[in-house]
Amino acid sequence: MSAANFRYAVLVEYDGTNLVGWQRQKNGIGVQEVIESALNNLTGSTVAIQAAGRTDAGVHASGQVAHFDLNKQWPTRRLIEGLNYHLRPFAIAIIDCRAVSGDFSARFSAVQRQYFYHILTRTAPAVLQAGQVWWLPRPLALEPMQQAAALLVGRHDFTSFRAAQCQARSPVKSLSELSLSSISLEGGLETRITITARAPSFLHHQVRNMVGSLVQVGLGRWPVERMAEALAARDRSRAGETAPPQGLVLARVWYPELDFYERSDASLT
Amino acid sequence: MSAANFRYAVLVEYDGTNLVGWQRQKNGIGVQEVIESALNNLTGSTVAIQAAGRTDAGVHASGQVAHFDLNKQWPTRRLIEGLNYHLRPFAIAIIDCRAVSGDFSARFSAVQRQYFYHILTRTAPAVLQAGQVWWLPRPLALEPMQQAAALLVGRHDFTSFRAAQCQARSPVKSLSELSLSSISLEGGLETRITITARAPSFLHHQVRNMVGSLVQVGLGRWPVERMAEALAARDRSRAGETAPPQGLVLARVWYPELDFYERSDASLT
Repeated sequence: MSAANFRYAVLVEYDGTNLVGWQRQKNGIGVQEVIESALNNLTGSTVAIQAAGRTDAGVHASGQVAHFDLNKQWPTRRLIEGLNYHLRPFAIAIIDCRAVSGDFSARFSAVQRQYFYHILTRTAPAVLQAGQVWWLPRPLALEPMQQAAALLVGRHDFTSFRAAQCQARSPVKSLSELSLSSISLEGGLETRITITARAPSFLHHQVRNMVGSLVQVGLGRWPVERMAEALAARDRSRAGETAPPQGLVLARVWYPELDFYERSDASLT
Repeated sequence: MSAANFRYAVLVEYDGTNLVGWQRQKNGIGVQEVIESALNNLTGSTVAIQAAGRTDAGVHASGQVAHFDLNKQWPTRRLIEGLNYHLRPFAIAIIDCRAVSGDFSARFSAVQRQYFYHILTRTAPAVLQAGQVWWLPRPLALEPMQQAAALLVGRHDFTSFRAAQCQARSPVKSLSELSLSSISLEGGLETRITITARAPSFLHHQVRNMVGSLVQVGLGRWPVERMAEALAARDRSRAGETAPPQGLVLARVWYPELDFYERSDASLT
């Protein structure tokens, strides 16, 4: 768009259950096309948006960030309310919106990305949390999982945890954090484990492939050291299977020039 | 059933979204009939179950309790796994099962029942929590709500908070607890309020009607004292509207002789 002079960043939440992921696909509806269509309905113009991370089918977001350009200035509150009106039939909502400078990129300006992966272990299948956790009928040993996770933190060649279709130029990535917490619920009848993964950027399926391997450790099928061997092998077949998408949530993206989580009364104009 | 000699209590979780409530209805599927059907499939016998509380359409349970009689002894682990297998297409699961004495009644032995009511306040509609919260686009003032809630605790005639179709003999009930907690999430972009209501028993719609009135206070439409006036009026039209079902969860039921939340390694046989 030649006249595009006003750039906006939005904080986006979506339930990925019935979506094919961020990007348009032949077999269903993508988040990007739904938001672009809402922008079109709201502004009357064709507007393209770009996201911090292209989540896969079934993966959720509580803190996805995207940016787009409009050819006139909009009050951010009107953008939030107008977009949410047009998004209504879909499990997608604009949580916040900020005007940003023309050189801000939701994708390229991001300095850190954080995902949560939720696991529920109990005898009974997930019901109230169905579609938002990986349910496992057996308990997981947290401490060995934490030890194995620590082996992956740092700068490594993550080929063993990289999807075949990954388009990143290099398999070398810096993993800033891979930590686990667990909470025992219903008087010990169930345990909810949350795995936090944070890095400047991730390879395709990297978080889910790391989680799949951590679960092997938690189930006692792998000794902790096997995580180091899997990493060193630089061979996808040596790591665990890809954890299912529904446990994964893109939770937060950090930018030097934008912080949705720092509030001020003037932030909604 | 004449030969019924073995009584079992089950702890049940369900997502009420697509169910018409605990009881069978003409317009959809009830939780009771689904579990009875699973029992029938598992045991080959016609088995009737009775629950602690008959939840309404759209209301959830994380800790519903029900009991039934079988004509032979079953290992509780087999009952849990077998029932969950047959419940599979439905958002209903058996979390735990215990053998109980023949005079235990999920309904009549219960001494306290606890519900949670979840409210999400933020600009954007609920997405990841859709179907499990009452979304309100405006913030609620917690402190006046807490003051108003305190006015309802104790033994009162709750006619003003009682559904027209309520079948209880008396509108006088003892409310043991009505407390509110709130958590600010996403850096203040949203607030989640949980209302805890606990009592030996409740009138039909009592929790949702109390919540509807508390929200009037939280929105600043009612001064705190109006809650006392609404209660004293003994007139349904003087209290607030019924809060929507999806925020309500039957969380826990207490029995003198049964505690699902007290674990022992021997509890699954």
